[in-house]
Amino acid sequence: MKIIVVGATGTLGKAVVGALKADHEVIEVGFQSGDVTVDINNLESIRAMYQQIGEFDALVSATGLVHFGPLEDISQEQWMLGINNKLMGQINLVIEGIKHIRDNGSFTLTTGVISQDPIPYGAAATTVNRAVEGFVESAALELPRGIRINAVSPTILEESVEAFGMAFQGFQPIPAAKAALGFVKSVGGKRTGETFVVKGLI
Amino acid sequence: MKIIVVGATGTLGKAVVGALKADHEVIEVGFQSGDVTVDINNLESIRAMYQQIGEFDALVSATGLVHFGPLEDISQEQWMLGINNKLMGQINLVIEGIKHIRDNGSFTLTTGVISQDPIPYGAAATTVNRAVEGFVESAALELPRGIRINAVSPTILEESVEAFGMAFQGFQPIPAAKAALGFVKSVGGKRTGETFVVKGLI
Repeated sequence: MKIIVVGATGTLGKAVVGALKADHEVIEVGFQSGDVTVDINNLESIRAMYQQIGEFDALVSATGLVHFGPLEDISQEQWMLGINNKLMGQINLVIEGIKHIRDNGSFTLTTGVISQDPIPYGAAATTVNRAVEGFVESAALELPRGIRINAVSPTILEESVEAFGMAFQGFQPIPAAKAALGFVKSVGGKRTGETFVVKGLI
Repeated sequence: MKIIVVGATGTLGKAVVGALKADHEVIEVGFQSGDVTVDINNLESIRAMYQQIGEFDALVSATGLVHFGPLEDISQEQWMLGINNKLMGQINLVIEGIKHIRDNGSFTLTTGVISQDPIPYGAAATTVNRAVEGFVESAALELPRGIRINAVSPTILEESVEAFGMAFQGFQPIPAAKAALGFVKSVGGKRTGETFVVKGLI
């Protein structure tokens, strides 16, 4: 398969590329580097990415910015960061991608464990992650030509514990290479409209 | 209790007002009419509403616009209709309302059954409804002074079948007066961070 990985330069994206590249042709897409670059906040940039890549079999999005902070302090701009980037950016990757994806292709988006397991200071992230999961479940009903769509909701990564671990009290971190299995399951399987939660024992 | 009902002039809002006014002081808020008016798309309008009303015990939001249409045809503006109105409008009612609500008060927001039960042409609505439910669940962790928050997800109303029923194949409609029970349960109870789904037998 020819597989586009958006966010290929990030911690999670690198692991997804690593898990897919032995068996597939992987196009690594980053914000500033990679085989191709894209700014998912910008619809024209998404269109240009697809023009450059042409037909493909699967797109994995392992990207999406969102603000963390105390509920009462989240500004309108901080709410819109997640909405414009992690939500509408991923939605637009799908809607524009329909025009270029082959029959029976798949889209796999990323949410995050606090969609299932909310934490203090995570309201903007939980809100956006749930929206992405709702999009995946509903969009699956309307995708044409056998095209599938799923989300992967990984728990906190071992690689991210030093930066963010204090916010995730009692969450068992997992290596990014394990989180990548969720994407492999989505791309390589037949299921659609689902969220694959990849977490530790708790 | 002094209870604000936003969307009091709508089909659902009228029923909520009817269910609450025997036992409570109800402030009816509409877009163009009511005791007070508000445009929930506009943060300044929300602030002015709270200034006018002063302290209160509960806010019920029975409002929220969202676009319905084929997945591939939903424009950026149509996506943003639901995001700015039903999602950010309701979030801003809560965040601004924290400054005026009494200890142990409650916020009750509205989602809709296609959050749980997606239908074709409903992707923008499912996405936004899920986001609102995620907000409710996560915001409940951070609300101060015993303040509670829930969502109500009503199925299609008998009063709306003529206009929208064709889109809801096999859904059993319920009277708005029954859907109002979800709001009464939220306002009158002690639970928080939940979505009360009010549907028919299917």
